[in-house]
Amino acid sequence: MTDGTPVKPAKVLVGAADLRALVAGIFAARGARQADAATVADALVWANLRGIDSHGVSRVPRYLELFDKGESVAGAEVTVVRPRAAVAIVDAHAAPGPVALTRAADEAIAGARAAGIGWASVRGTVHTGAIGYYTSRIADAGMAAIGVVAGVPNMAYAGAKGAAVATSPLSVAVPAGQRALVLLDMATAVMALGRIAQLKAAGKELPPGVALTADGEPTTDPALAKVPTPVGGAKGAGLSLVFEMLASGLAANPIVPGYHSGTKEGKRHRQNGFLLAIDIAAFLPLGEFTATIDETVDAIKSLPPAEPASEILVPGERGARTEAERGAAGIPLGPKVWRELTEIAVSLEVGVPGTIA
Amino acid sequence: MTDGTPVKPAKVLVGAADLRALVAGIFAARGARQADAATVADALVWANLRGIDSHGVSRVPRYLELFDKGESVAGAEVTVVRPRAAVAIVDAHAAPGPVALTRAADEAIAGARAAGIGWASVRGTVHTGAIGYYTSRIADAGMAAIGVVAGVPNMAYAGAKGAAVATSPLSVAVPAGQRALVLLDMATAVMALGRIAQLKAAGKELPPGVALTADGEPTTDPALAKVPTPVGGAKGAGLSLVFEMLASGLAANPIVPGYHSGTKEGKRHRQNGFLLAIDIAAFLPLGEFTATIDETVDAIKSLPPAEPASEILVPGERGARTEAERGAAGIPLGPKVWRELTEIAVSLEVGVPGTIA
Repeated sequence: MTDGTPVKPAKVLVGAADLRALVAGIFAARGARQADAATVADALVWANLRGIDSHGVSRVPRYLELFDKGESVAGAEVTVVRPRAAVAIVDAHAAPGPVALTRAADEAIAGARAAGIGWASVRGTVHTGAIGYYTSRIADAGMAAIGVVAGVPNMAYAGAKGAAVATSPLSVAVPAGQRALVLLDMATAVMALGRIAQLKAAGKELPPGVALTADGEPTTDPALAKVPTPVGGAKGAGLSLVFEMLASGLAANPIVPGYHSGTKEGKRHRQNGFLLAIDIAAFLPLGEFTATIDETVDAIKSLPPAEPASEILVPGERGARTEAERGAAGIPLGPKVWRELTEIAVSLEVGVPGTIA
Repeated sequence: MTDGTPVKPAKVLVGAADLRALVAGIFAARGARQADAATVADALVWANLRGIDSHGVSRVPRYLELFDKGESVAGAEVTVVRPRAAVAIVDAHAAPGPVALTRAADEAIAGARAAGIGWASVRGTVHTGAIGYYTSRIADAGMAAIGVVAGVPNMAYAGAKGAAVATSPLSVAVPAGQRALVLLDMATAVMALGRIAQLKAAGKELPPGVALTADGEPTTDPALAKVPTPVGGAKGAGLSLVFEMLASGLAANPIVPGYHSGTKEGKRHRQNGFLLAIDIAAFLPLGEFTATIDETVDAIKSLPPAEPASEILVPGERGARTEAERGAAGIPLGPKVWRELTEIAVSLEVGVPGTIA
């Protein structure tokens, strides 16, 4: 500090179990059932373990704001109807995303056990976090999974000015044998909003092509970047639009028309989603399938690299590596995130765990 | 011609019904059942009607080559097993794609009627054509649809040199009310192979970012372009890889490991796929759903355009417009395509229809 160079405040390291207990304590203190509080904590800490910090425990203050405004309800009781053997409709009644989506994952698994595949639509939740958590949960049951979440428009649409559709993510989980779970989890934007926010917070220039200004001009200036661009132009925009139609349309809770109607209610934060579980054992013995997935991963990883030193990664591989590291060494949290969490905990008389470093 | 300027040979215009009869006649003469020949003709002509000429009747000679080599069987009898209420596995036994995928669409619809959603995997077919044809067929039954086809690697994978995965397409069909069917049909490549081939044939420069040379260098030179690039880099590559795992893995007929094993058999043309049908009426009354889709389309099309004169299109809108035009005026075919088709027809003693122009 003596030479005037700003010193970056050190991150703290917190054990995953301690962090889960802290977050669960906060949600329980705000009115969530114990089991639901534990579910939210597990989903958020999972995102941190996997290295998706933008969807992890840094989101806790935002959930509490939504509780304060009545836009989410900590103790909401999720209800489920099952109109057909392979279909469940999970009404979140504004419960936090992890509560609703975890229930949906279990309903999709139940449908798939009964009929070979199972679909669960989720109506009216908030912040779902990293959706790979829910497709991973289905994969843990020996199934493949597809998941989508649709939200309030924040992304450009080919040919239109301003935010038109959402950066709605898609996740696909495919269980492997010896290899790690193959886990794709991608936004329909070129760059996920959380990552843009991280670069903005750091004052770093954005790569070209990831965002537009409020006037619809391409920009790399983080201060001017307002609207992320869809991946592949019309492709990402089209994907996001059909995800809205499937996620929100089938849940009878459309978001896009209301948003563009210009009402305040239409701009309110809300999300819908769906999960599809595929019972692999209905098709072939699970061990044969996972052996094929291993062979497929091995074939890709054995390809000649584009650059001599470059490693070829399959979806989920980096996340699995980070999960192993952070599970052992602890989860690094920025000082602001840790301060916010501990202040909330103290105000709610929730115990604050010690840090590893 | 007198001034030395090459004159572009004129296209012929053929009526859709006439073109269907011609193609069906060719397939029947090569040993397909009448119904299967009509199915192939309908699928290929549909692609031309929709403006997807790269997947239309220009493919006929390629199917006949595959019959000649024994890699496809015109009269193959597709077999179906239904291990669970919502799951069908359609074994193509090397039947042409349209025969196998049309059967799969009907099986997916049947599963969805029984269980709310229905999945059909397709094992071991060839050239499926434009997969929007099959998702549209499901949509005609009042259902939403998702479809994927996986084939032999021909596309780059992030970090690897050469062809690693396929340009496997994804289609999503969502029925509307007054509006046209919302129909997304996209390759996982930045630019579909057919379009690259069209630009190559025309000797036109490629846009930047769509293809690599054999050495893995980016190029816009159509003569040097060998490997198309995935849309969004790691995203498109990852999508293609999980599509292979779902399409080929669940069909117990993996393509990627065999391809990279270096055997001749591993490089042989073959495709797998899957179709998912979602019975909207299991979720909400179909009319309510389609009204929501209309409202969503209207909201997007009413957005302020990025440029004053630009029109905002939703997926499938351009195709529906072309279908209406070509259905009325006839399908334009390049002289080479028409010559090949008529020569084949004459050699098989199949009647050649007259052209409109």
